[in-house]
Amino acid sequence: MKPRVLIMMGSDSDLPVMEETAKVLSGFGIPYHMTVASAHRTPARVLKLVKEAEKEGVDVIIAGAGMAAHLPGVIASHTILPVIGVPLNASSLDGMDALLSMAQMPPGIPVATVSLGKAGATNAGILAAQIIARKDVRLAKKLLVHRGKMAREVEEKARKIAGRK
Amino acid sequence: MKPRVLIMMGSDSDLPVMEETAKVLSGFGIPYHMTVASAHRTPARVLKLVKEAEKEGVDVIIAGAGMAAHLPGVIASHTILPVIGVPLNASSLDGMDALLSMAQMPPGIPVATVSLGKAGATNAGILAAQIIARKDVRLAKKLLVHRGKMAREVEEKARKIAGRK
Amino acid sequence: MKPRVLIMMGSDSDLPVMEETAKVLSGFGIPYHMTVASAHRTPARVLKLVKEAEKEGVDVIIAGAGMAAHLPGVIASHTILPVIGVPLNASSLDGMDALLSMAQMPPGIPVATVSLGKAGATNAGILAAQIIARKDVRLAKKLLVHRGKMAREVEEKARKIAGRK
Amino acid sequence: MKPRVLIMMGSDSDLPVMEETAKVLSGFGIPYHMTVASAHRTPARVLKLVKEAEKEGVDVIIAGAGMAAHLPGVIASHTILPVIGVPLNASSLDGMDALLSMAQMPPGIPVATVSLGKAGATNAGILAAQIIARKDVRLAKKLLVHRGKMAREVEEKARKIAGRK
Amino acid sequence: MKPRVLIMMGSDSDLPVMEETAKVLSGFGIPYHMTVASAHRTPARVLKLVKEAEKEGVDVIIAGAGMAAHLPGVIASHTILPVIGVPLNASSLDGMDALLSMAQMPPGIPVATVSLGKAGATNAGILAAQIIARKDVRLAKKLLVHRGKMAREVEEKARKIAGRK
Amino acid sequence: MKPRVLIMMGSDSDLPVMEETAKVLSGFGIPYHMTVASAHRTPARVLKLVKEAEKEGVDVIIAGAGMAAHLPGVIASHTILPVIGVPLNASSLDGMDALLSMAQMPPGIPVATVSLGKAGATNAGILAAQIIARKDVRLAKKLLVHRGKMAREVEEKARKIAGRK
Amino acid sequence: MKPRVLIMMGSDSDLPVMEETAKVLSGFGIPYHMTVASAHRTPARVLKLVKEAEKEGVDVIIAGAGMAAHLPGVIASHTILPVIGVPLNASSLDGMDALLSMAQMPPGIPVATVSLGKAGATNAGILAAQIIARKDVRLAKKLLVHRGKMAREVEEKARKIAGRK
Amino acid sequence: MKPRVLIMMGSDSDLPVMEETAKVLSGFGIPYHMTVASAHRTPARVLKLVKEAEKEGVDVIIAGAGMAAHLPGVIASHTILPVIGVPLNASSLDGMDALLSMAQMPPGIPVATVSLGKAGATNAGILAAQIIARKDVRLAKKLLVHRGKMAREVEEKARKIAGRK
Repeated sequence: MKPRVLIMMGSDSDLPVMEETAKVLSGFGIPYHMTVASAHRTPARVLKLVKEAEKEGVDVIIAGAGMAAHLPGVIASHTILPVIGVPLNASSLDGMDALLSMAQMPPGIPVATVSLGKAGATNAGILAAQIIARKDVRLAKKLLVHRGKMAREVEEKARKIAGRK
Repeated sequence: MKPRVLIMMGSDSDLPVMEETAKVLSGFGIPYHMTVASAHRTPARVLKLVKEAEKEGVDVIIAGAGMAAHLPGVIASHTILPVIGVPLNASSLDGMDALLSMAQMPPGIPVATVSLGKAGATNAGILAAQIIARKDVRLAKKLLVHRGKMAREVEEKARKIAGRK
Repeated sequence: MKPRVLIMMGSDSDLPVMEETAKVLSGFGIPYHMTVASAHRTPARVLKLVKEAEKEGVDVIIAGAGMAAHLPGVIASHTILPVIGVPLNASSLDGMDALLSMAQMPPGIPVATVSLGKAGATNAGILAAQIIARKDVRLAKKLLVHRGKMAREVEEKARKIAGRK
Repeated sequence: MKPRVLIMMGSDSDLPVMEETAKVLSGFGIPYHMTVASAHRTPARVLKLVKEAEKEGVDVIIAGAGMAAHLPGVIASHTILPVIGVPLNASSLDGMDALLSMAQMPPGIPVATVSLGKAGATNAGILAAQIIARKDVRLAKKLLVHRGKMAREVEEKARKIAGRK
Repeated sequence: MKPRVLIMMGSDSDLPVMEETAKVLSGFGIPYHMTVASAHRTPARVLKLVKEAEKEGVDVIIAGAGMAAHLPGVIASHTILPVIGVPLNASSLDGMDALLSMAQMPPGIPVATVSLGKAGATNAGILAAQIIARKDVRLAKKLLVHRGKMAREVEEKARKIAGRK
Repeated sequence: MKPRVLIMMGSDSDLPVMEETAKVLSGFGIPYHMTVASAHRTPARVLKLVKEAEKEGVDVIIAGAGMAAHLPGVIASHTILPVIGVPLNASSLDGMDALLSMAQMPPGIPVATVSLGKAGATNAGILAAQIIARKDVRLAKKLLVHRGKMAREVEEKARKIAGRK
Repeated sequence: MKPRVLIMMGSDSDLPVMEETAKVLSGFGIPYHMTVASAHRTPARVLKLVKEAEKEGVDVIIAGAGMAAHLPGVIASHTILPVIGVPLNASSLDGMDALLSMAQMPPGIPVATVSLGKAGATNAGILAAQIIARKDVRLAKKLLVHRGKMAREVEEKARKIAGRK
Repeated sequence: MKPRVLIMMGSDSDLPVMEETAKVLSGFGIPYHMTVASAHRTPARVLKLVKEAEKEGVDVIIAGAGMAAHLPGVIASHTILPVIGVPLNASSLDGMDALLSMAQMPPGIPVATVSLGKAGATNAGILAAQIIARKDVRLAKKLLVHRGKMAREVEEKARKIAGRK
C-alpha cells in the first residue's frame, strides 16, 4: 500500500517520540513511511526522500527534530506539500530552541508547527489525518469517532476522580 | 462563490496583519470569508461560525490572535477541519505569549502554528493553499509557479546588491 | 452540602497537584466539587459544568491546566463568576507556556492567575477562601487564624535551625 | 460613599495604566480610593493604607507595579482581603520581571495576577467587580449586561470588516 | 561574640543552600546569626529581626529566597544596611523568577544580587566579607589569602587533568 | 579629594545611564572617579585602573556594561574590593544578556548585581554609599535622610493623584 | 582579485546590517563577494553559490539571517569551509529565534555564531580575518594594529569623559 | 609534537563535556593541549597560557565555560587567534546564561560560539579542524571523509528503523 504520509526524524534517538505519530496514523489506517534523515549531515538524502515522496503521491510530510531544528524547514524548501514540524527537546534548553527554529519560518515557506515532544508527535498525526480527510470522507468520519472517544475518556477520568474522593 | 477558507481574528485591530493572509489567498484565487470573533468575549459566535463553515464546505480555518491566544485552539475544539494559528504580537511580551498559547496545544487537538505576525499571516495563506492543493491540481501548479516567482525575486535582489556595490 | 467552589482540571494526571486546592478548602470547611474536563477535548462538558455550578450557587471556579492552558479562560468566557487559574508544569517548557496562556488574558475576561504547580494549587484554595470570606465573617476569622498558624510555623522552623547550629 | 476597592500603584508614572482600573470600577458604579504607595520606599505607608482599607470595609485591593513588583505581595502579607496584582512594563525586560514577581507568590499568601499593562488594569477592575458581585446581585446583573455589550462590540467590528472588504 | 552578618532565608528547606554562606563566613572568622523569616508569612518578624540586627551593629544582611523572592527587597525597605540577595531555584522556572524578583529592584532601594543557588550562597558570603574588609584590614588579608588558595586549586586541577591524559 | 568610588563603563555611549550613579554619589558628597575601559578591547587598562584604585584607597568599584557584560567580573577577578555591576540594555535582547553575564558569576568571585539600566545605575550609587556608610557615620545619617526624602516624595505624588481625581 | 570571503544574506533588507561585515573586510584589504540567497526560497542557489565559492578558493563563508535563521546551517551542510553565522533581529522576538536557530546546531555540522545584529556583523568580519590570518602573516599584523587602534579609541573616549566632567 | 589547538575549561568538572572536543581532534590527528584555567580565579594564568600558545604556534583556542561564561571572551581579549566558545550548562538556567555570555560579545572581539554542552564540544573540535584545514589539504580531505562517514551513519540508522518496523 502506498504511503500517504512520510515521517522523517533527524536521529534514531528521536524514535521513542516520533513513534507516537506512527501510532496515530496506524490507528486511522493511514499508510506511512518512517525514516531517518538529517538536514545537516545528509542534505542530499533529504532532497531525495522528498522527491520520492512527491512521486509516490504522499499527502503530508511530518518531520521531528531538536536543537536548531531545520529539518522541516529544509523539507519545506524542496516541496509544496504541507510540512508538519514536531519540535523535540534535545538540548538543555527545554526544546525552546527547536520550537523557535521551526515556528519562526520566514514568509513564503510555511511549517505547520505543533507542540513540543510526544504531545506534538500525537498532534502531528492527527493534523495529517485532518488534512487528508479533506479528500477522504471515511477518514473524516474516523476523526469524528476519535473525538467522541477522547471526550468519553475525559468523562471516564472524571468518574474515577469522583469515585476516589 | 463559496469560501474555502475561513479567516477569524480576535479584534479588528488585528486586521492590518491578517490582511496578509487574505492577500495570499486572493493571489491564489482561493475564495475566503474573513471576520472578527473573540474566543473569550463571544464563544457562542465562534461556535456558530465554525459550524457554518463546516456546512459551507470550508477546507481550512485560519485564526489570528494575540496575548493568551486561545482562538485557534477553541476553534479546533469544535471541528475536525485543519486549523492554522497565527500568533500576534499584542502585548509587551513580543508575541511569546501568543506563540506558546497556540503551539503548545495538548495532545488530541492540534493547531498548525505558523510564525509570529505578518510573516505568519503570509505563511498561513500559503499553508492553507498547500492543504487545499492536495485535492486541486490547478492550485498545486499555482503554488509551484509562486515558488519560482519567489526564487526569481531573491535573484533580483542579489542583482540589486551586486549593482550597488 | 452544596459546593461553594468548583475545581476543574484538564486531566486526571493533574490530580496530585490540584488535590492541594482540595486540602486547603477542606481545611477551611468550604464544600467543593472536583472534576475533570478538557477545554479542547470536551468543550461542551466544560460549558455544562459551568452552568450547573452557576445554578448551584458556586462562588468561585478554580481550574488547573498545563501547556496551552486554556481551561480557566474558556470557563471565564462562559461565566461572570471569579475564575482562578493554576498553571501546571506539563511540558518541557517548565510551565512557562501555561503561565502565559493563563495570565495574559485579553481585556474583558479576567483569570486570576496564581503560582505554578503545587504552590499555586495551595494559593488558589486560599484565594477562593478570601473571596468567599467577603460575605462570610466566620471564614474570615478562620483565615486570620490560618495566618497566625503559618507565622508560628515559620518561627518553629527558625528555632529548629537555631537548635541545629 | 465608602470605597469598596483600594487601588495602589508604586509611582504616579503608573497612573496612565492604572486609570483603566478606575474607569472600569466607575463604569460599574463601584466606589474606590486610588493612591500611590511604594512597597520599598514607603513600607509603613503601605501597611497603614491596608489597615485603613480593612477598617473602611474595602472588599478588594488592587496593586499595579513594575520591575521587582513586590507591592501586591507586600499588601497581601498584611491582609486577608483578596489582592489583585497588575504587572506593569517598567523596565527593558518587557514586564516579564513584574509578571514573575507577582504570579510566583510562595504558598500561603496568594496574589490574583492578571495580564500585563492596560489589559491587566482593565481586567483587575472586572475581577474586582466579579468578586464583589458574589454579595451584590445588582452588580452581578451589570456584569452580565457588560458581557452582552462586549459581544455586541465584537459583532459590530465584524460588520465593519465585512463592509470594508 | 556579636554577629556581623545576619543570614535570613524564607524557609528551612533553603538551609542546604544557605549553609554555603555560613561556611564561607565561618572560614573567614566572621560571626553571623542565621534564621528563618518569611517576607509574606511573617512580615512583622522580618522587621523585628532587621531592627535588632541594626542595634547589634550587624554590617551586612544576606537573604536567600525563591519564587517571587521578595525577602531581600522587603529587608532593604527597612534598613540602610547593605542587603545581599541570593536567588534560589524553588519552582519549575529554574530560578529565573527569583533572579528577576531580586535583581530588578526599583530605583532607591538596592539589593546586591548574586548568582542563583549554591554558587550565589558562596558568593554572598565572600561579598559580605569584602564589604566588612573595608574597615577590617585583617579580613582583607584573609581575602587575599583565599584568592591565592583558589588560584592554587585551579592549578591543582590542571595538573590532575594533565596527569590523566 | 581622593575618590572613594571608581566608576567604569565599557563605552562612552553608556554615559547617559552611568551618570545616574555619579549624580547619586555627588548627592551624598562621595568623591568618585569615572572613566571608560573595555574588558575586551583594553584588558590591560582595566587591570591598571583597578590597581590604581586600590592604591588610592577606593572603597567600591562600580562597572556598567551591556551585551556579554564581562567588565565587572573582570574587575572582580583583579581585586578584593566590592564590585557592583550595572547591566545595560545594549543589544536587541533587552539587557537579559547583560543581566545573566553579571549575576551568574561562578563561586569565588562575586559581583553585586543591581537592576538593568538607569534604575540600576541609581541603585549602584546608593549601594556604594551603604557600603561606605559602614565606616562613616555621617554618611549613614545622610542615607537615612535620603530615605525620608524618598518617602515624602511618594506621599507628594499620592497627594497629586488625589487632587487630580 | 579572487574573493576570500563569501557573504550571504537571506534578504536585501539585511544589507544595512551585513554591510558592517563588508566594511571590516575592506578595512583589512580582504576581497569578498556579497550576495542574497535564501535557504528556504532558493535552496538550489545556496548550494550553487557554496560550490562556486569552494572552487574559487574562498576561505570563510559568512551568513546573516533572521527568524528561523537556517541559512548558515544549510550552507554548512554543503561544505567543510568554516561558516560564520550572524543572527539578525527580524521578528518581534528580539533575535532570540535567530540566535537559537544558529547557535544550537546539532553535533557534526558547526556554525561559528557571533553576536546579534551589527555587533555580530562586525565581529564576523574580524573572525574571518582571524581565521585567514592563520596563513597570512601580513593580515595577522593588521589585526594587531587594529587591536591597538581599538584600545586607543577607548582611551580617547575616557579622555572625553574626563574633560566633560 | 607541537599542539595546534589549546583547550581550556573553567573547572575540571567540565572535563566530561570538553573531552568530546579532545576526541574529535584526536580523530583528525590534530595535536592539542588541554588544561584548566579560570577567567575569574586565575586571570594571570589565562593570560600566560594564551601567550605560550601564541609562541608555540597554536592555531585555535577552544574554551568551555558555564554560568557567566567569560573564559573565551577573556582569552579573545588577549589574542588575535580565533577563539571558539563552548557554552556549558552549569547552573539552574539550562545554559542560557553561558550562551548569552559567550555569543553576545561586543563589537571588536569575536568569540565563535557553538552549541551548548556535548554537541558544542564536538562541534568546537570540527570547527577548529575546518579552520586549520584552510592551510592543511590533508586535513581538509579527512574532513570530507568524516562527512561521508556521518552520512553513512544516518543511512545505517534509517535501515535499523526500517528493519524494526
